[in-house]
Amino acid sequence: MSDIPDRAYQGKNAVIIGGGVIGASWAILFLANGLHVTVCDPDPEIEGKVLDIFKTAEPSLQGLGFETAGIGSRLIFVKDVAEAVGRADIIQECGPERATFKQGLWKTIEALAPAGALLLSSSSGIPASVQNTEMKEPGRLIIGHPFNPPHLMPLVEIVPTEKTDPALTEAATAFYKSIGKVPIKLRKEIPGFVANRLQSAIFQECVYLVTEGVVTLDELDQIVMQSLGIRWATSGPFLSFHLGGGPGGLPHFVEHLAPGMELIWKALGKATFDDATKTTLIEQANKSYGAQSYDQLSATRDNAEVAVIKALGSAAVSVGG
Amino acid sequence: MSDIPDRAYQGKNAVIIGGGVIGASWAILFLANGLHVTVCDPDPEIEGKVLDIFKTAEPSLQGLGFETAGIGSRLIFVKDVAEAVGRADIIQECGPERATFKQGLWKTIEALAPAGALLLSSSSGIPASVQNTEMKEPGRLIIGHPFNPPHLMPLVEIVPTEKTDPALTEAATAFYKSIGKVPIKLRKEIPGFVANRLQSAIFQECVYLVTEGVVTLDELDQIVMQSLGIRWATSGPFLSFHLGGGPGGLPHFVEHLAPGMELIWKALGKATFDDATKTTLIEQANKSYGAQSYDQLSATRDNAEVAVIKALGSAAVSVGG
Repeated sequence: MSDIPDRAYQGKNAVIIGGGVIGASWAILFLANGLHVTVCDPDPEIEGKVLDIFKTAEPSLQGLGFETAGIGSRLIFVKDVAEAVGRADIIQECGPERATFKQGLWKTIEALAPAGALLLSSSSGIPASVQNTEMKEPGRLIIGHPFNPPHLMPLVEIVPTEKTDPALTEAATAFYKSIGKVPIKLRKEIPGFVANRLQSAIFQECVYLVTEGVVTLDELDQIVMQSLGIRWATSGPFLSFHLGGGPGGLPHFVEHLAPGMELIWKALGKATFDDATKTTLIEQANKSYGAQSYDQLSATRDNAEVAVIKALGSAAVSVGG
Repeated sequence: MSDIPDRAYQGKNAVIIGGGVIGASWAILFLANGLHVTVCDPDPEIEGKVLDIFKTAEPSLQGLGFETAGIGSRLIFVKDVAEAVGRADIIQECGPERATFKQGLWKTIEALAPAGALLLSSSSGIPASVQNTEMKEPGRLIIGHPFNPPHLMPLVEIVPTEKTDPALTEAATAFYKSIGKVPIKLRKEIPGFVANRLQSAIFQECVYLVTEGVVTLDELDQIVMQSLGIRWATSGPFLSFHLGGGPGGLPHFVEHLAPGMELIWKALGKATFDDATKTTLIEQANKSYGAQSYDQLSATRDNAEVAVIKALGSAAVSVGG
């Protein structure tokens, strides 16, 4: 990729806590960027599982321009956190989403890891200020929440606590930039952070429209892919309305078009995952997507995501000069 | 584009009622597909306005593979509906969004247009069953709601009424397919149709997060562009969760991950466009996007949208065979 910057972290030691789907995806991305990676996981079969995920991820990383040959020589697996973190420069936690687990983990890590190591949590839901309660220097912990799959999606949400030294937040940001990500810092902790809250907001209306019978689940997917997805891949919701109202921009939008939107807000549906809803969604998902395997569908999606990411990179270059 | 089909409507007569932004965009797309186009608008300066919009739209259409040289020879402008519709094969209405205006318009059109003409409304908010109240054959009118800009965005939402002959809905669908669009038929009329309801649902949370100070407006735009936009350009919300839960698919999602989403649903914000909110949004929009002109920003966006649409076409071809 044209915007992989200085590779300041090349050759550094990264420790991934938890070798699940997210951890393995981070691991291959770190390796492709030249880091040494220790995957720390008590599962006796973790190595095979991680390497299986690598196999799926490799074509996407190659598509984005990364070299993946020989990366295995910089990868090791250990079972104990104590054994893993002693020489870590970066620790990316991807463990179970339970507050008590993470609280104990960070207490252990803080005691054993170098004082300069970046302490980063992939949690999608447990803010750093909840995870850090047993730490001596709670401000050291920062959320670095990726968007799945981390090796492919540009976004990382950086969420410090009020106690975090801004220099540490800067260092976390610089690290993610150095491996080709687009880190965005949130100004406040909030449950679900930003991307997942937005995803949840739209999904409630998605479920409502399907259970109301306005469209089927695959029709709704097509509607989003052929309109909002393309729009939001190229300009976010605010810029879209800044341009959508004509040369008057967002001021025109909020004066003339916002009242109509407020009416729609009042009409938006409520949904719950009750048994009838679950049944409808599962039946329609089987009908629409059941004929293709998970691996086939994932490969199609990953291939398309790589194509879009590359196209956006080229478009930005050709417009910006 | 590889999927422009049989061009069955090449050489046919299309009438655009209303030469505003949407009407002009339809006009150039129809022309680029070989149709003859009459733009019907009482504005004495309409020709210049439409041709200005053509200038902006031409690079995008050329980027998508359309030939636009010489299309002006098949374009005429008239002021009166009576003069415009007598030999129409397709009438695409893009007039003011007022129910009474549209009701009177369709009464006039029905009396003057050929019995076989397709009667299509671009309305984003007024269902056909409200527009058709003065028609003798109300079932003839169908919503063909584009996503802005129509010459670029693939989606057209087709919304018939309960009285519409399914053969007519099929004909409208075939027409939009023949000019390279992706028409999706809604199974029920609903205010705002599907894409704009979804857009409104996410935008309420966007406004909430900005007014709460979690992120600025341009930070939120970046978050969406670097995550959800890319995801939804390549797979809709349901397919994303079908794949996001691992090989267990959507059944796994609704059992294990849906409860967490229901918690976020309860925590989602409410927003209103009160004066304080308007001020915040306008100030931030000026700060983030005010340095670039509407034309510059639009060109950047259009260029990126063309790149994404082309990339998705190529990815689909290379995966699907």
